[in-house]
Amino acid sequence: MKTHTLPAALPAALIAASLGLSLALPAAAQEADERPTPNSVIEAAAPEEWAAIPTSDLMVMRLADDAEGNRREVVIQLMPKPFSQGWVDNIRLLANTSFWDGTTVYRVVDNWVTQWGDGEDNEELAKPLPEGIKVVPESEYVAKVPDEKSEQAGRFGLIDSYAEATDFRDGFPIVQTGDYWWPTHCYASVGVARDLTPNTGTGAELYTVIGHAPRQLDRNIAVVGRVIEGMEHLSTLPRGKGGAGVYADDSKRVPIEWVRMADDLSEEARPKFEYLATESASFERYVKVRANRGDSFYQVAAGGVDICNVQVPIRRITDAE
Amino acid sequence: MKTHTLPAALPAALIAASLGLSLALPAAAQEADERPTPNSVIEAAAPEEWAAIPTSDLMVMRLADDAEGNRREVVIQLMPKPFSQGWVDNIRLLANTSFWDGTTVYRVVDNWVTQWGDGEDNEELAKPLPEGIKVVPESEYVAKVPDEKSEQAGRFGLIDSYAEATDFRDGFPIVQTGDYWWPTHCYASVGVARDLTPNTGTGAELYTVIGHAPRQLDRNIAVVGRVIEGMEHLSTLPRGKGGAGVYADDSKRVPIEWVRMADDLSEEARPKFEYLATESASFERYVKVRANRGDSFYQVAAGGVDICNVQVPIRRITDAE
Repeated sequence: MKTHTLPAALPAALIAASLGLSLALPAAAQEADERPTPNSVIEAAAPEEWAAIPTSDLMVMRLADDAEGNRREVVIQLMPKPFSQGWVDNIRLLANTSFWDGTTVYRVVDNWVTQWGDGEDNEELAKPLPEGIKVVPESEYVAKVPDEKSEQAGRFGLIDSYAEATDFRDGFPIVQTGDYWWPTHCYASVGVARDLTPNTGTGAELYTVIGHAPRQLDRNIAVVGRVIEGMEHLSTLPRGKGGAGVYADDSKRVPIEWVRMADDLSEEARPKFEYLATESASFERYVKVRANRGDSFYQVAAGGVDICNVQVPIRRITDAE
Repeated sequence: MKTHTLPAALPAALIAASLGLSLALPAAAQEADERPTPNSVIEAAAPEEWAAIPTSDLMVMRLADDAEGNRREVVIQLMPKPFSQGWVDNIRLLANTSFWDGTTVYRVVDNWVTQWGDGEDNEELAKPLPEGIKVVPESEYVAKVPDEKSEQAGRFGLIDSYAEATDFRDGFPIVQTGDYWWPTHCYASVGVARDLTPNTGTGAELYTVIGHAPRQLDRNIAVVGRVIEGMEHLSTLPRGKGGAGVYADDSKRVPIEWVRMADDLSEEARPKFEYLATESASFERYVKVRANRGDSFYQVAAGGVDICNVQVPIRRITDAE
């Protein structure tokens, strides 16, 4: 038995925004409720607490239009250093050589993953990889915690079922056990599909998580980034009915028109995002409020939160701003 | 810092079934790998370790056919005693009076919930509820742990971010803090939508979880059951673009043709399921193997697992058996 109490909800005079299940929050209730919500903390964050995501870390995947003719674009943020850099290098090369153009989304498993790439098991039929693809060792699933940073581990006091400590680094959830830390699988995380260990995959076949965090994959697969926009284009696809959730009917595969690094798109087409800096005071407040919901929808504050239930706030920077 | 080690993977001479990300596991690798997997433990369970789900706890929801003319049916298992029984009684009454026939699935939020029912905020326009609907107090979100059972709490040793102990009762994940336990929100859990506290909802508006477990809703909303078949019909729906994820365009709402308790269906139409008894030796083994994957896809065993990542094995009983 252990306690799960994080510091109680902070005093604040902020208007609560409903993220609950009610359809409409009466205006009167909104005005009366001055307890902070995750949304109100985000809204109150100072402009300098937001950090731009380097556009050099963004990759855009254009799928074929949907049945109603709507454009489907997915934006993926690649993992910052020191994590998964060997695979991230491969992924940049694959995007820069147009490897994924004309490939497909070919596998969708409910509460598990949506997967894309060439999807051809037969090596003789598989699409050739570009020259320069690295073979990355399993040792790179984790990174050694630098001595000067180790005392910061676990600064939010979150209890985790899988690791000794949790943290956020440069906007990503990271977990740590002993002297090693690694990026963790959460909803919308992007990872490198592979065959049996010690194969670590090239990065040519990628997947994203469309269900509860499959944390057992941590340290067994390279987490290389996350979907930060357009997730619904991958999470709503029909589930595959073939072996391992592959589409049994090839016509169900969703064509990938192209994948490009954002910096290779025109200035107008290039997406720009920022995240609430995970080193900021507002982010610390956000984590505490997520662990201790006290706004008007809630009767009982959980007194804890798991790392994958703390979605780092990310927003698009529009030209109008 | 704390340790997260569950007992190491058990010795067993079972053929491993792949639940990994590879497309196809070579037959040679399958034969060489004798370490247990969650699937191999399920397959090795004795027939008497499987428990029938009472058909009186099953509810079937028939949606309108999809665009390709495929039938869409969802099977929901209602929560057993002592949890949420006031709302479960309401839900039985609503099904028995055909309340949901002609209502819709009207709200879908990515990584959150799919919600259905009447969906009308205006009380004057809302569909009248049948006579006999109970008003259930918030105190029934939790139940008191019986004295004779309290020493069993936490028998699997799982570490939880939200409660002091975790357990499984009659096939459902249950968590406990102090003298109280409650059913927990996991992927596919079904709960009662409501407005602001102390309103606890009637059960007429229901939702299911389509993303990472929103455990902050525990003890704040009645968990009344779970989807055990047809989840993909709710998880793949287009996400709503109106306020709170309601479909802005009414034509996007998915018609509900009917909802009935399984016992009111004909013998041929009545679904039958069984689950791996959560009190069985095989279930205990299953939890340990889920926490310590050692089969050929895995390089590192997690040494832990969170309760929502231990999906209780459920299978349909077919007439052929």
